[in-house]
This record gives sequence, structure tokens and C-alpha cells, in this order.
Amino acid sequence: MPSSNPRARHFPPPMSSTSLSPEGEEVAEEEQVVTPWEVSAKQGGKIDYGKLIDQFGCQRLDQSLIDRVQRLTNRHPHVFLRRGVFFAHRDFTDILDAYERGDKFYLYTGRGPSSEALHLGHLVPFMFTKYLQDAFKVPLVIQLTDDEKCMWKNLSVEESQRLARENAKDLIACGFDISRTFIFCDFDYVGGAFYKNMVRVAKCVTYNKVVGIFGFTGEDHIGKVSFPPVQAVPSFPSSFPHLFSGRENLRCLIPCAIDQDPYFRMTRDVAPRIGYSKPSLIESTFFPALQGETGKMSASDPNSAIYVTDTAKVIKNKINKYAFSGGQDTTEKQRKFGANLEVDIPIKYLEFFLDDDAELEQIRREYGAGHLLTGEVKRRVIEVLTELVERHRRARAAVTDEMVDAFMAVRPLPNMFS
Amino acid sequence: MPSSNPRARHFPPPMSSTSLSPEGEEVAEEEQVVTPWEVSAKQGGKIDYGKLIDQFGCQRLDQSLIDRVQRLTNRHPHVFLRRGVFFAHRDFTDILDAYERGDKFYLYTGRGPSSEALHLGHLVPFMFTKYLQDAFKVPLVIQLTDDEKCMWKNLSVEESQRLARENAKDLIACGFDISRTFIFCDFDYVGGAFYKNMVRVAKCVTYNKVVGIFGFTGEDHIGKVSFPPVQAVPSFPSSFPHLFSGRENLRCLIPCAIDQDPYFRMTRDVAPRIGYSKPSLIESTFFPALQGETGKMSASDPNSAIYVTDTAKVIKNKINKYAFSGGQDTTEKQRKFGANLEVDIPIKYLEFFLDDDAELEQIRREYGAGHLLTGEVKRRVIEVLTELVERHRRARAAVTDEMVDAFMAVRPLPNMFS
Repeated sequence: MPSSNPRARHFPPPMSSTSLSPEGEEVAEEEQVVTPWEVSAKQGGKIDYGKLIDQFGCQRLDQSLIDRVQRLTNRHPHVFLRRGVFFAHRDFTDILDAYERGDKFYLYTGRGPSSEALHLGHLVPFMFTKYLQDAFKVPLVIQLTDDEKCMWKNLSVEESQRLARENAKDLIACGFDISRTFIFCDFDYVGGAFYKNMVRVAKCVTYNKVVGIFGFTGEDHIGKVSFPPVQAVPSFPSSFPHLFSGRENLRCLIPCAIDQDPYFRMTRDVAPRIGYSKPSLIESTFFPALQGETGKMSASDPNSAIYVTDTAKVIKNKINKYAFSGGQDTTEKQRKFGANLEVDIPIKYLEFFLDDDAELEQIRREYGAGHLLTGEVKRRVIEVLTELVERHRRARAAVTDEMVDAFMAVRPLPNMFS
Repeated sequence: MPSSNPRARHFPPPMSSTSLSPEGEEVAEEEQVVTPWEVSAKQGGKIDYGKLIDQFGCQRLDQSLIDRVQRLTNRHPHVFLRRGVFFAHRDFTDILDAYERGDKFYLYTGRGPSSEALHLGHLVPFMFTKYLQDAFKVPLVIQLTDDEKCMWKNLSVEESQRLARENAKDLIACGFDISRTFIFCDFDYVGGAFYKNMVRVAKCVTYNKVVGIFGFTGEDHIGKVSFPPVQAVPSFPSSFPHLFSGRENLRCLIPCAIDQDPYFRMTRDVAPRIGYSKPSLIESTFFPALQGETGKMSASDPNSAIYVTDTAKVIKNKINKYAFSGGQDTTEKQRKFGANLEVDIPIKYLEFFLDDDAELEQIRREYGAGHLLTGEVKRRVIEVLTELVERHRRARAAVTDEMVDAFMAVRPLPNMFS
């Protein structure tokens, strides 16, 4: 099962194939493992997201909440909300309650810059975060954990920094509003108020605790052990005095893939002990690999994902050749039995990226009933993805180094709530 | 056995009462333990410094080296060199070889600011460092580890920062040359090049390794596990771009008490793996408690040490009442047998602070032969210490907040080698 999360890490899995309870304790032999470094479903199956909600102790993002977002923002909810891509939350209700009373919040998301080319899964949380920023008119901080990637992937400091700037261009290409967005790399930004908060957090977390949460072993280097506070502290407004001075009680909402939940369980556990509010979360499922939701997206297999650098021809080839189909083997059988939509990757991809609800519903109905063939559905997916990737590529090509510097400048965001 | 080191820490001792080999491995049941947080001699005995040299794998600072320092600096060696207070080193010879060829170096020392009042033992490394700075005409960086004290002593960030500034006044009162000295607090300074070096070091040290070196347990918080790189990286010139830009190969010499050796064994182990030179060390014995070299100086017992805030009357009282004497019980026995200089604290204190070699030798001879009584020797110690403390107090009273800011300003030191 591939991870669509913006900070997917490749790291030795926890020592046993157990899962984590909300307290970070091991639960005897669960069938699926979801940590920031490993996402694996029960043998041959799919991730059971309902079970994950129970395991992690987060809440389901139900229709009434989506309706409430629509009412409060006065706009059609994002496709990722409507279709259940963002399906779980922690205290998102508190954010909406406060917003309804006139209190704003800020958004925090991030990415571990591990390679130059992003794939579509990487874009998911950023596309959704842009929607949230536009809909709620709130400031956003984006953390690029070049320090983490330097430590986990054994990259040089300089190479990690270079990747972070390259990735920043992809994020900027998602259309974030520079007047409300601060992007930072840890190597540039750690220090001062941010470092003080790192120390405050680190004091509250024992080594045994991080072993329970993240599965470190004694042979892991201490850089890994030191890192969780670095990802925790952007949850606290006081880590950004140039943005939130005088607004230290501002609430924080973190859009992320659900495999990042362990970091923020830890953060939420520590927050009240150091006098800070717990951040709220809104959490997504994973973006499936071309080979299917049970497949594993491999960093060494470029054919498991569509990259934002793929040409139209490559996209067409990958979808036609690798996208797992729920359609029948032959046209005759397809006409007779229809496709199994539950396992069909073209349908999944359309659910993520085809905004038109009516068209999607029609495709689902006709494909499921056998009126549409796999090739026809794939043709539509190829169109949708090619358009998305082309649009992204054009936007990214327009991002200059000066724009990166401007987004990363340590500066106030004067009109961040308007 | 009290620790005179500038960064004495109070921390649970390693799990067993074993010592550490140069590789940080445990050695079966040694009788003495010396770590940054614990200094304990064999039951009822004194620290065996010769054995410590063997255990740690450092080198003895012998007379030929002292003679060489005298020749190179063209001045009488400091009393702490002449009397063997600084008794061990690592690669100090390399520093002198390079110096002889015309290559300079820089000094690095530090202190964990844990309480407002320093005692005499705290001053030892700083008095010696000032001598080195003056004699070799080299720059000096002084690290105040307010982050560490915040984590170990569970102080607030603000209180740790306040203590660091108070302690900085005591250090400045030691007479450091502002044109060659940069003092920094971690909470203010960690970030940028310094943080990058922290990450480079952390990548090279496993959790098992720091457990072997420092004796951490799983119940210790991760702030402790994260700290060793913070104390390591001032050993590398690139951590101070405002000072050493273009001089990244400058050698580093660290004067410290020998209980800090574990930090720098780790640092020296890592340095070549990240392309840096190993720092050299020059290491001191511990400053004895009033109750004797076998006694334990207790933070909660102000009568175990002379503080720089003690009045003349308090000094007199402490020496007369608490300073362990090697003299005989009665005047008659003293006249007949003389004093045992090996255990006599007044003599030890004179060895540290009475600069006049001839006078010291005369006192030792006459006291040892019974011609001098304990009370007479104590009278001389009281004079010497009172003068030292009064001089320090006057110097400290003259240190303004503006001077602290000036020493801590992140600035170039334009004439640091002249």
C-alpha cells in the first residue's frame, strides 16, 4: 500500500508487525501496520480505515461536518472532502466551533524532501491545504524537513537543502497565496523560539515513549530519536514569532495523511503539559499505486506512480499498461458482468481528480454495469491526469528562485486573516 | 569527590558502577566512576588520575610539554600547569606542533548554568582558559548550555536563560579579552551552521553508543539523548561562520575538567567521519570539597565549597570549621609528627591558588615537618581565598548588561589572532 502522505519516510518498520494503540502501546498481532515509515495492509487486503480510526483513537469525518464546512465557508466542499479522501480528524469540530465564533486558526502541513520528482499522491495534501486556505482565509506554514531527510536517507546537508528548494517549487505551483503562506526548511529555520519549543517538547517525551510510537531501535542513530520534536513544534504558534507574536493562543489545524498521526498523537499528548493548545488534525487515506490498493509503491519502481514530471505519452503508457483494472478479461464478460469498482484503479484515480460529481457517477454506473469498457475509462483517466500534470508543470515552470526566496522569507504576513 | 568542572551535571549515574573504556564500553567492576554527571572514587579513597588516563585513553601532560608551552609562549606557565591541575591531554602536542609552524588555533570551553553562585572550582577552567588565551593570543568561544540545564534540572526556558546571563557575568569577570572572545547561550545561538553540524554529528552516533558513553536509560527523556551533539559541535570551526569563515580547518583546543572527556571522545570519534579535525583537549583534575578529596560536594550543602559570593567572614568560618586538615589533633603531636599533606585541604587549596612557588614550598615543608600549625596554614588560605573572591566580586560588579550583550553579539572578532 503506497503512502500518499507528504512526508512519506522509508525507515525500518517497528520491531514487530503490531499496530499502535492511541497511547502508543503495542496491540497484539493486528493485521495492518500504519506508521510514518510503513503502511501495510492485511495480507492481500486493503487498509481498513475504519479500524485505523479505532486503533488511533481519532474521529470519523462525517457528512454533518462536511455540511458544516460548506455552510461556514459558503462554497462547495473540496472533492477530497466530498469523496472521503480526508476521512478522519481530531478536534476539527473545535476549529469549526471557534471559527463560527469568529476565531481564526492557522494551517500547518509539510513534506520530507526526499527526491526531486513528486508523484500525484504527494500533491493530495497540498491541493487540499490550498482549498482550506482559500476557503477559510487563514495563514499556512509549510515545513520542509530537510534535516530529517538528511538523517534518514543519509543525504548530505547540501543535497537535502537543494531537494527542499526543488520541492518548494512544486508546492508553490499548487497555488498557495504568498500573502498568507510561510514555507521554511528546518536547516534554515531551526533556532530561537522554534528551538526553545523543541527543547520543551523533548523534555516531556521519554526514549521508551518514542520507541513505542515510532519503533526506533538501539542501533538507530540519535538524530532519529531527536527528530520528533522538530515535526511537533510547528503545531505551536509561538514557534513562529514573526507570524504569530501576540497570537500565541491561535489554534492549529494540520491536514496530513493518516500515517503522520503518531507524530501528532505525541504532540497532542505533550501540548497541555507545556501550556499549549493541542493541534487539530484532518487526515487522509493513502493514494493508491497503479498496481492497486494492495500493491506497494516502490521508490525504485517509477511504474508504480504517475509523477508530475511524466509526459503525456508516459502517463498514457503507465495507465494503459499498469493501472490495475476491475474490468473483466474480455469485452464479452465485461458487457455481461461489469467491472468490480472496488479494486479498479482508474475509478480510484477519477475519484481523486475528476471534480464533476455527475460525470463520475455516470462513469461508475456505466462501468459497473458493463456499458463502459476498461479502455474507455482509462482514456478518461489519462485525459484528467494529463491535464492535471500539464497544469502543474506549467505552474512549476513559472516558479522562480526569487519566488522561493519570497515564500521562505522570515517575515510577517500582514493580511493573513483577510 | 566534588567536580570542579564548569559543566558539572547532576544526573542519574550509569546503570552499573563500571567505568568506561576509550571506546565507551563498560569495563568490569572498576572502583571509580567519572562521567559528566558522576564522579566517585573507590570507597574511602581518592580519584586515581593515573588510572583515569589509562581508562579514558588520554595522555599525561608531562614536564617536557609544560617546558614547551613556556618556550612557545615566552611566559611562566600557569600555576595550574606547574602544579599538575591540568594533568592530561589529547593531541595537545598537535596544537603545539602547528603553533610552532605558525598555525593558530581556537579555544572552546563552556558551562552549564545551573545556579547563580559559582564556587571556586567553577572558576578553575576559566582562569586557565584566560591564561591560554593571553599566552597564545587566540580566539575563544564559551558555550553556556542553558538548553541542557533546562532539560536536566527541569528549569523553565526563561529561568535557564536568566541563569546563563548571570553566569556570563562571572565568566566575563575572569578577564577575557572581548576582542577575542565570543560567549553564546544555546537557546540564542542554536540554528544555521551550528544546527547543521548537530545533525551531521547525530547521524553518526547510535542510541546504543550514547547509552554506553553516558548511561542513559529508556526512562530518560529524548532531550537528554539529543544533547551530546550540542556540546560536540563547538569543536568545529564551521559552527561559527561569523568567526571562522574561510578558516574551517582551524584547530580547536578544549580546556575542561576530565569528567567532560566522554563528550569529546564521542566528538573525536565522529569528527573524521564528517570531514572535520578532531579537537584537542587539555584536562584538569577536580577541585576538592572542603571536607576532603573523598568527600562529596553537595549542591544542597553550601558548606562544602567556597562561593564567589561568600563574604570574608563566611570564608574564614568555612575554612576554619570545615576544611579537612591533615594536621595532628594536638599542637604537641603536630610539632612531633607534622601534617599529612596528602589529605590536607588547606594545602590543596594553596596549590590551586597561591601563585608563589617558593612560599608554597616553604609552607609545605614547614607544615609537613610540624613547624607550622593547621591554624597558621588556614590563616594563609583564608587570606589567599578572600583576596581572590574579593577581586572576583569587584570585577563582577563592574560587568554591565551591555557588556554581556557585547560579548554575546554574533560578530566577527577582527583581530582575534593578534
